Amino acid sequence: MTDSLFYAELTWPDSQARIADGASVFLPLGATEQHGRHMAMNVDVVLPTAIAARVAAKVGGLVLPPLAYGNRSQPRTGGGPSFPGTINLKAHTFSLIVRDVICDLYRQNVRRIVTINGHYENIGPTIEGIEMALDEIGRDRVTDLIVLRVDHWDMVRAATLERIFPNGYPGIELEHASVIETSMMMALRPELVNIGQASNDGPASFQPYDRYPSPCDGVPPSGVLSLTEGSSAEKGEWLLADCEAAIIEIISREFNGD
Amino acid sequence: MTDSLFYAELTWPDSQARIADGASVFLPLGATEQHGRHMAMNVDVVLPTAIAARVAAKVGGLVLPPLAYGNRSQPRTGGGPSFPGTINLKAHTFSLIVRDVICDLYRQNVRRIVTINGHYENIGPTIEGIEMALDEIGRDRVTDLIVLRVDHWDMVRAATLERIFPNGYPGIELEHASVIETSMMMALRPELVNIGQASNDGPASFQPYDRYPSPCDGVPPSGVLSLTEGSSAEKGEWLLADCEAAIIEIISREFNGD
Amino acid sequence: MTDSLFYAELTWPDSQARIADGASVFLPLGATEQHGRHMAMNVDVVLPTAIAARVAAKVGGLVLPPLAYGNRSQPRTGGGPSFPGTINLKAHTFSLIVRDVICDLYRQNVRRIVTINGHYENIGPTIEGIEMALDEIGRDRVTDLIVLRVDHWDMVRAATLERIFPNGYPGIELEHASVIETSMMMALRPELVNIGQASNDGPASFQPYDRYPSPCDGVPPSGVLSLTEGSSAEKGEWLLADCEAAIIEIISREFNGD
Amino acid sequence: MTDSLFYAELTWPDSQARIADGASVFLPLGATEQHGRHMAMNVDVVLPTAIAARVAAKVGGLVLPPLAYGNRSQPRTGGGPSFPGTINLKAHTFSLIVRDVICDLYRQNVRRIVTINGHYENIGPTIEGIEMALDEIGRDRVTDLIVLRVDHWDMVRAATLERIFPNGYPGIELEHASVIETSMMMALRPELVNIGQASNDGPASFQPYDRYPSPCDGVPPSGVLSLTEGSSAEKGEWLLADCEAAIIEIISREFNGD
Amino acid sequence: MTDSLFYAELTWPDSQARIADGASVFLPLGATEQHGRHMAMNVDVVLPTAIAARVAAKVGGLVLPPLAYGNRSQPRTGGGPSFPGTINLKAHTFSLIVRDVICDLYRQNVRRIVTINGHYENIGPTIEGIEMALDEIGRDRVTDLIVLRVDHWDMVRAATLERIFPNGYPGIELEHASVIETSMMMALRPELVNIGQASNDGPASFQPYDRYPSPCDGVPPSGVLSLTEGSSAEKGEWLLADCEAAIIEIISREFNGD
Amino acid sequence: MTDSLFYAELTWPDSQARIADGASVFLPLGATEQHGRHMAMNVDVVLPTAIAARVAAKVGGLVLPPLAYGNRSQPRTGGGPSFPGTINLKAHTFSLIVRDVICDLYRQNVRRIVTINGHYENIGPTIEGIEMALDEIGRDRVTDLIVLRVDHWDMVRAATLERIFPNGYPGIELEHASVIETSMMMALRPELVNIGQASNDGPASFQPYDRYPSPCDGVPPSGVLSLTEGSSAEKGEWLLADCEAAIIEIISREFNGD
Repeated sequence: MTDSLFYAELTWPDSQARIADGASVFLPLGATEQHGRHMAMNVDVVLPTAIAARVAAKVGGLVLPPLAYGNRSQPRTGGGPSFPGTINLKAHTFSLIVRDVICDLYRQNVRRIVTINGHYENIGPTIEGIEMALDEIGRDRVTDLIVLRVDHWDMVRAATLERIFPNGYPGIELEHASVIETSMMMALRPELVNIGQASNDGPASFQPYDRYPSPCDGVPPSGVLSLTEGSSAEKGEWLLADCEAAIIEIISREFNGD
Repeated sequence: MTDSLFYAELTWPDSQARIADGASVFLPLGATEQHGRHMAMNVDVVLPTAIAARVAAKVGGLVLPPLAYGNRSQPRTGGGPSFPGTINLKAHTFSLIVRDVICDLYRQNVRRIVTINGHYENIGPTIEGIEMALDEIGRDRVTDLIVLRVDHWDMVRAATLERIFPNGYPGIELEHASVIETSMMMALRPELVNIGQASNDGPASFQPYDRYPSPCDGVPPSGVLSLTEGSSAEKGEWLLADCEAAIIEIISREFNGD
Repeated sequence: MTDSLFYAELTWPDSQARIADGASVFLPLGATEQHGRHMAMNVDVVLPTAIAARVAAKVGGLVLPPLAYGNRSQPRTGGGPSFPGTINLKAHTFSLIVRDVICDLYRQNVRRIVTINGHYENIGPTIEGIEMALDEIGRDRVTDLIVLRVDHWDMVRAATLERIFPNGYPGIELEHASVIETSMMMALRPELVNIGQASNDGPASFQPYDRYPSPCDGVPPSGVLSLTEGSSAEKGEWLLADCEAAIIEIISREFNGD
Repeated sequence: MTDSLFYAELTWPDSQARIADGASVFLPLGATEQHGRHMAMNVDVVLPTAIAARVAAKVGGLVLPPLAYGNRSQPRTGGGPSFPGTINLKAHTFSLIVRDVICDLYRQNVRRIVTINGHYENIGPTIEGIEMALDEIGRDRVTDLIVLRVDHWDMVRAATLERIFPNGYPGIELEHASVIETSMMMALRPELVNIGQASNDGPASFQPYDRYPSPCDGVPPSGVLSLTEGSSAEKGEWLLADCEAAIIEIISREFNGD
Repeated sequence: MTDSLFYAELTWPDSQARIADGASVFLPLGATEQHGRHMAMNVDVVLPTAIAARVAAKVGGLVLPPLAYGNRSQPRTGGGPSFPGTINLKAHTFSLIVRDVICDLYRQNVRRIVTINGHYENIGPTIEGIEMALDEIGRDRVTDLIVLRVDHWDMVRAATLERIFPNGYPGIELEHASVIETSMMMALRPELVNIGQASNDGPASFQPYDRYPSPCDGVPPSGVLSLTEGSSAEKGEWLLADCEAAIIEIISREFNGD
Repeated sequence: MTDSLFYAELTWPDSQARIADGASVFLPLGATEQHGRHMAMNVDVVLPTAIAARVAAKVGGLVLPPLAYGNRSQPRTGGGPSFPGTINLKAHTFSLIVRDVICDLYRQNVRRIVTINGHYENIGPTIEGIEMALDEIGRDRVTDLIVLRVDHWDMVRAATLERIFPNGYPGIELEHASVIETSMMMALRPELVNIGQASNDGPASFQPYDRYPSPCDGVPPSGVLSLTEGSSAEKGEWLLADCEAAIIEIISREFNGD
């Protein structure tokens, strides 16, 4: 029988034993969203799941099945809800999933949950879902539950960003399908990246406001918001190592009081 | 670049091209639910996803990311919502996901959708989700959309059931974590089955009614509702072959008018 | 003043006294749905209400007003949501009614509730409604509440089915508007049955999957899924007697610990 | 076969024929609510259903199954949500039922709907349910649908009120379980009235504001808000005749353009 | 720094101190709704806010930001949802706002809340919102919370109405945009009243039932349901003084036990 | 009569005429949220409303009543939902308000809407509300509607930020209750700022992740996330002038095609 890092690959007695031992549980939050002409649409699922697995391997945690459908993509951060290929959930639907999963984990005595997010637009509905779970469980009763909410891009050290972007970091929002995501995919799932297909039609230059219902004109035709030039598996490894290290440190501080 | 069967492993231009060519899209509907002491909790995800992939390979279709969290497990069909390990969504949450995914597929011109279900309790909320999608798209407008809803266990031929159960088929509800599911898992993911751990504490003998909030006493301690004896990868292959053949025939009839 | 079996026919002091005495409360769950050319559309209301009344008379219980509108009819079990005459609630609406009624009964100290269902498609939303009520009341607080969920067709003894169907029971799903329901209606409300109008256009032969939005072609034009031949008030009495006896036994076991 | 006034007592072909002939459809809206020590709790169901049947008999209409559970009772109009016996739905639940029923009637070509209400607290949620139905059907499409919303107490002629209350009409809100309702029940279901049990602990004297969560102190212990003295079946007949005549006139004006 | 009556004009430490001192909190409930050709559309906001401020000044209370959008206007009480200018919320939306605000006030130790309503159609959804808040906080826990719900028109003394309407008070529903509201606006915000534009196309004569989806024909073209003749700032002062005095007395009785 | 910039201060015929003339409509989105010991809690309402009024005065637009209650405050951007004084709406509630208001504006022929936001946490639920409105109106029908979504801080020119923050701009999230907001309040409502009470307990130093349910420790006791030093009415004027100019330019481009 597998001694898997993945919750759903365990038998129920094994999962029960692991949770009784205090295992942290990781919930990867992703999306099925266009990521340029050179990458698969599962980038936002692959990255947080891989990061969660690396961390879980080190801290004895368990990785839950990722949420593979994300909150509505927006033009300025992912191409927008009507970009071809992207599949969008409504914000309330996404929040309800997060709420239900957390409430049910609580019921079976999980008290240490880390959501690891790979899709910018999930931030708000994840916060709402967590708050709704706390409301439903009962604020006075949840004294022993800690839920951490991590966006993987915020785990990268400034030094690494400087190393990768010697000319200046364009900021996470424009990083959609760009050097950071491309590099990490090259490190993790090279068969899902065709760097030769990476367009040079960016970077996007967005207006500093949103317009509805028309998609903003600023999304480059490729869907890549910034640039892919210079992406490499090696850089991907730097980034993944940062994420792993940072989350391990967070867990140590928040869960173990170190 | 991969020429994947899996929608989310494609780039957006590839997915767009495939859909423009009329590719059918398969949505596996699963759960994270106890499946006895001898199997992983992802059985209801693994089986419909694998079946979808086999069919998609033959008919030129695409497999969407599966829904890995299912509607509340019930004692008589899966051990119940409070069985350790199982993670339950509320019915309305599950329906909203199905609704959102179908509405958004429709927006990007998908007109041939097949849901392949692996979790008994998903049946009702899937029907509701599909109906809600039709309501939202507009009943008069959806003249060109066809959504098929398939439960994999209904795809098995009577002859195969007789071959597997020479002493009589106990019925699909009691088959939870039993010979059918165990055999298919042995064929597909043998590393997630430890047949030596299969208990002989069944079959379940349920009262013909439900009691709340207490779990019915009839669930065997192992969570296996019937028996696992006689499970084999070979039988799993018979079952998978039946599912594949039946769904291909359905698609041929419903989508191609053959 | 009436000493009625029907909750709503009592004055409030009488209902209060009866509940303080520990009376079980029965909630019939029905539908307004086509039942062939030979029967009224209230079959799914009449049957569970009559059964509830017979049981209540024996065990000193009270029958609540039935829910007369049911969850969306489906082709394979009732003709489908677009069959003429049928009035469909959405699943979530139905669940909310069940939730509200149970929560409010709990508030007024009812602790023994039995839902008696007459409409196949109500099963899932009733389970959800009960679970939602338990969530709302608070799982830790409801230690003294028992809700039983009974489908009347599951109360019939195998011996009776053999007697009625000497050539084999077609199964409950196909029994829609067929011998079982017709016979019970003939026993209870003969004026609502015109057996001469019963069509012989069945039995339905459904594909083992659902297709949306078109109704499955397999529904016979009459709406009767199986056959009505051989229906009689006498057989109806056998069936009703079985239901009555079985539910009384269940109550004795679950509520009185016998 | 019955040639019933009640929709659910018809076969589906009969209901279909009646609707094709332009039959108006009546939806009685009631509640299960305390109505004093002298009357059953189904008053708000019995009255609008009986009135609907009288009108339907004259205009060739059909009476739908009544909604037997109403929106939360309020102290100033019915004793309040925590009065013993009363069963309360949340407003949103009630509105969703009204919405679903109207949407589904529209689907099967019903274009003339009259809701007849017997429970004061239903007014708001009924309006909302009707508006939600119009939103869902589509405002531009519903040019041929007319829904009338009638409260039965507003159908009584001033002359009749003067005759019944020679000393002045206390107003409909205080009429809860009082002379008007009691008289109509005496005319329709005398076995559900025990006039000897009618208390003389009213009339209620409410403060002109609401207080939550405590029930207002002004509800008399009996639950009768005004007085029952002088109630009689004869007066009930006057009231029912007024309701019948007024609604027939409304239908004639609104539906037939007379 | 301001020593404002208005909650949102305080700093958080000041609000916290005031609440710790037991300050009552007033929530004005209004609407943006047509009020005739002679008045602004913010009447239903201006009036309850001004009344709240006058009361708060006397009792040491705090006025919350008013809800400026109200529940769907109805023809018989405000011109209806499709009258030009009016902006309508759905009932459920309105109730959710009330629920959220009350729940959050409770969280920060507010235990004395008074809603002061200026829009007839808000009554039902406000009641529902308050009840939902009590449900969410938990009925057993809210023993120390009192929420009062006041409609300002019910605070006017009979003597004042007689003085203003020597020929008889037409009733509050017809008072929409008429003498009462116009007079109070003249007292409070004369620049928002142009009495010369007041039409004489009323009073409205409504049928005693509602018709959907068409607006009732009885709404006068101006939107004034009754008459504006005789409106004056002086009368407005009488009305405001009544409201102030009555609410102060209510607070004294309900909150201070006087 | 007033010739107001504020929609709700107009009569309905005036608003109707203005909209028929093509007036843009501005919806300020705010919150009631702690803004340090030195400022009122209505900052997020005052700023967008004032900016909207300045723009409306120039372009002939109308300002709707602001939403005065915002989506749940978060620690990293506003102190968090349990900071004293702050009143939080759930995300779904906020989205429903935005949806209802936009749908209803559309009904009365408004086709140019600009939301001006002053509360960071409103961004996501506003996007969702706008998308829900487009879903409800019907994506094919809304070809003539444009909704712009503006956050006022994104309207400030880089040159102005450099002038105000010669040592570097700390970024908008940390600007909560800091120099930008304080300066604009000093320009607009000096009586609501007591600069002497401004604490020097910042800047906040947040961890780059969220923790629930405990508030992050990084919020300075004052609630000011950055610093207030150097705030002035003059700088406030620079900022307001930037906002005004930028939004006028946006409107010119998007609405007039300039």
